[in-house]
Amino acid sequence: MTNTKTNSGNFFEDFKVGHYLPHATPRTVTLGDVALYNGLFGGRFPVTSSDDFARGLGLSRSPVDELLVFHMVFGKTVPDISLNAVANLGYADCRWLAPVWPGDTITARSNVIGLKENSNKQSGVVYVRSTGRNQSDEPVLDYVRWVMVRKRDLAAPAPETVVPSLPAAVAASDLVIPTGLDFTKYDGALAGSPFRWDDYEVGEKIDHVDGSTIEEAEHQIATRLYQNNAKVHFNQHLQGQEKSGKRLVYGGHIISMVRALSFNGLGGAAMVAALNGGRHVNPSAAGDTIYAWSEVLAKEEFAGRKDVGALRLRTTGIKNRAATEFPGPDGTGKYPDDVVLDLDYWVLMPRR
Amino acid sequence: MTNTKTNSGNFFEDFKVGHYLPHATPRTVTLGDVALYNGLFGGRFPVTSSDDFARGLGLSRSPVDELLVFHMVFGKTVPDISLNAVANLGYADCRWLAPVWPGDTITARSNVIGLKENSNKQSGVVYVRSTGRNQSDEPVLDYVRWVMVRKRDLAAPAPETVVPSLPAAVAASDLVIPTGLDFTKYDGALAGSPFRWDDYEVGEKIDHVDGSTIEEAEHQIATRLYQNNAKVHFNQHLQGQEKSGKRLVYGGHIISMVRALSFNGLGGAAMVAALNGGRHVNPSAAGDTIYAWSEVLAKEEFAGRKDVGALRLRTTGIKNRAATEFPGPDGTGKYPDDVVLDLDYWVLMPRR
Amino acid sequence: MTNTKTNSGNFFEDFKVGHYLPHATPRTVTLGDVALYNGLFGGRFPVTSSDDFARGLGLSRSPVDELLVFHMVFGKTVPDISLNAVANLGYADCRWLAPVWPGDTITARSNVIGLKENSNKQSGVVYVRSTGRNQSDEPVLDYVRWVMVRKRDLAAPAPETVVPSLPAAVAASDLVIPTGLDFTKYDGALAGSPFRWDDYEVGEKIDHVDGSTIEEAEHQIATRLYQNNAKVHFNQHLQGQEKSGKRLVYGGHIISMVRALSFNGLGGAAMVAALNGGRHVNPSAAGDTIYAWSEVLAKEEFAGRKDVGALRLRTTGIKNRAATEFPGPDGTGKYPDDVVLDLDYWVLMPRR
Repeated sequence: MTNTKTNSGNFFEDFKVGHYLPHATPRTVTLGDVALYNGLFGGRFPVTSSDDFARGLGLSRSPVDELLVFHMVFGKTVPDISLNAVANLGYADCRWLAPVWPGDTITARSNVIGLKENSNKQSGVVYVRSTGRNQSDEPVLDYVRWVMVRKRDLAAPAPETVVPSLPAAVAASDLVIPTGLDFTKYDGALAGSPFRWDDYEVGEKIDHVDGSTIEEAEHQIATRLYQNNAKVHFNQHLQGQEKSGKRLVYGGHIISMVRALSFNGLGGAAMVAALNGGRHVNPSAAGDTIYAWSEVLAKEEFAGRKDVGALRLRTTGIKNRAATEFPGPDGTGKYPDDVVLDLDYWVLMPRR
Repeated sequence: MTNTKTNSGNFFEDFKVGHYLPHATPRTVTLGDVALYNGLFGGRFPVTSSDDFARGLGLSRSPVDELLVFHMVFGKTVPDISLNAVANLGYADCRWLAPVWPGDTITARSNVIGLKENSNKQSGVVYVRSTGRNQSDEPVLDYVRWVMVRKRDLAAPAPETVVPSLPAAVAASDLVIPTGLDFTKYDGALAGSPFRWDDYEVGEKIDHVDGSTIEEAEHQIATRLYQNNAKVHFNQHLQGQEKSGKRLVYGGHIISMVRALSFNGLGGAAMVAALNGGRHVNPSAAGDTIYAWSEVLAKEEFAGRKDVGALRLRTTGIKNRAATEFPGPDGTGKYPDDVVLDLDYWVLMPRR
Repeated sequence: MTNTKTNSGNFFEDFKVGHYLPHATPRTVTLGDVALYNGLFGGRFPVTSSDDFARGLGLSRSPVDELLVFHMVFGKTVPDISLNAVANLGYADCRWLAPVWPGDTITARSNVIGLKENSNKQSGVVYVRSTGRNQSDEPVLDYVRWVMVRKRDLAAPAPETVVPSLPAAVAASDLVIPTGLDFTKYDGALAGSPFRWDDYEVGEKIDHVDGSTIEEAEHQIATRLYQNNAKVHFNQHLQGQEKSGKRLVYGGHIISMVRALSFNGLGGAAMVAALNGGRHVNPSAAGDTIYAWSEVLAKEEFAGRKDVGALRLRTTGIKNRAATEFPGPDGTGKYPDDVVLDLDYWVLMPRR
């Protein structure tokens, strides 16, 4: 009797459109998690740094960083969705629906909303909508992810192709402003950035200047903190036998790094409200130094609100090259080898 | 006047049977410690991950991970017991007696219960029973450890040999089920493992499949978190002059790693109740990838309880080799060089 | 439109004597920060390790480690004071004015108190007095730092030279004993050190014996935890192009390391009360093993107090060499290349 109790994960043919997948493991997010996240990324956005600052904006205390919430939810989906993934292809329609407070317990569930077998019949694309909820069963995060998953049995018949219709971007009117949040008394000097929503223009590009080098211990500690058990991040013995020879850094690690780097130039981007899309264009490994630049894609007001506006940003992560020249895809959509992330998202920003 | 105030630790001839050693340093274990432990090991056992899950089982909240409690107590014993150790030889009769809750303050004391000088008269084996207590002076952990300790003065006379009689295993009837714990409502889907006590058979072997690579920063941060100051773990300048050339990883680090790895196949092993024995068969260093496999040694019911059973497990830790072939000692008891840990312990598991 | 919103920091000619600089980012210091700090440095001083121990001395709970408070305040000053620093030259007149408790929110402000252009006209020395305050606007830490800062415009005229008069040491009578602190019931056995203020003599030298090796992930995590964004600590891509080829370790990291190492020989140095001066004599990098030794410079009693005394210490940090020979400056004041820190400070110690 051997090995019948381990989780080998779902393969492409195991997914059916309409399937509902409750995920393990429930997780109480604590001040300890927040501190470790701060040590790993060094964020300086004040809403998540200071209880007093958050209270001055009408919140009860500092909420848990939006991306930490994302990683916690994402981590839970891995054992069921992407243990046999070839590649994580994209995100869409991702919204934060309510703040998570230290002490809240998060659970996650996914629905399979699309399937498309690849022409090589060795794998296929699985589309899931994943939702994180707190201990009161209130949704706190909701997003679509699609991922290429291997087939266990190459002879398994292809499912009917269902490709969900996904928005190119979350509509600004669908963004959720946390209950009670009021930026009227936002203190820009204390926040470390004098620039507000009014100061940014569509098309504006910002080189975030600073670079940050990834260490193996850092991305491993982060990824384990989220209980993400994808083996490519942790097993050098296996990865050393692969072409790259290296452990792969969890893509979300790069998202958190560029968010922290973006403070230099986007210090007023107080909270992340939505991800419109995100592509991990090239892999990253320990030793890589990550730089970032951003472009303002759109600006939107909220009906009846003069304190807060939404900025749609595209932040590009680059490895081992400064962002001075704003590297991105060429005319054919092909990215240079040193671009690692193309992230399209909405932030909430105080207005003048 | 130099250097008379530093602690050079106890040498073999300093120990006397019957000696009672109160240990420094009292330690309040917090949510921060728990988070860092989670980041270092990535445990997914739900009782220690979710306050809500724990409350659903009759506890007031998530207790501190049993092995984190062990390391905290063990760490306190190091300055008095094993600062001059040649080798940590074994553990026995180790029981968790009550949960530790975040906010509790732990202290530790040891009694010398055995002494045996080695035939080379350069060192000897010291047996201690160490007990961890909370701020109400309630015992939370109790175990025997024996360790080979150098003599300061090789001419010091040998003590009378006293070798304590130690049980091969803790009797199942001596295991402590935390007060209030009731697995009746244990949610296996939420816990991430459908298998329960009933599903395991004595003799069953489980390859835990996954491997995890050790980084210097990780084992150092963990070991310092426990205030374990054994210098072999931290000082590359010294260790570089030793044969291995490397810092040695604290043996308990491997115990925590294999416990986390064992979730894949033993996800229902909700709580550790006792260590029957443990041997660090070979050393580990940063860069090693740890794998693990387990064998079910015994199954026991508890009188009057239908919700919880005890499983006696033997989990073997291996470095830089998958556990597929279940490596262990040969007929003469000799271990392959890549086996690093042989751990015999009891877990509490929900029943059907 | 590019890059006009990033913070390029202040250059020498931007500072004016009398300028008042409020610093971002307010920071709530939590139990999570404390745990991570413990994991990074492994401190064993009991007042900051055990709530129960602290309560036995008249405090409400364990205060946040004094040096963690220092780093948090220091980190906030970096974006405004030292982003364009060539070198951090020294500290003076640094006092802890009130304990910081987990949950407190820290802010920081600096006043420019001196300026002196260098004879090469490429940079100058800026003297600032920085103060950390809690959420009730009470000062918790106050210190002077001077730093050599580059000029942006080499043609900018030199300011009037103002060099503040700084005390060689904080007067013992100016040290602040935390309100309520009473060492009468200090338990030396539980604290792990039998030696008290009475047992130390001026001129006594103590080799702290142990060494600790720095890892990149450790100093990066620590420095980001403090929201210190000085790029030399984090960017290998840039630093690899410098002469050293390595990321520089934040000087305060070494201060925390030697404080932790000093427990072995100065275990009774319960709390740090003041820094009289500190010089980062040579840089440190990952891979360096840090050792330390201390000399007792002075002993002072407090009027009306029999429970607590002050010890003035000079602790020297060394890399990759044991402290056995007490390395320090030669007759001309020149330090050996392997001395990295010369720290002069006051500690509060229980008396007999």
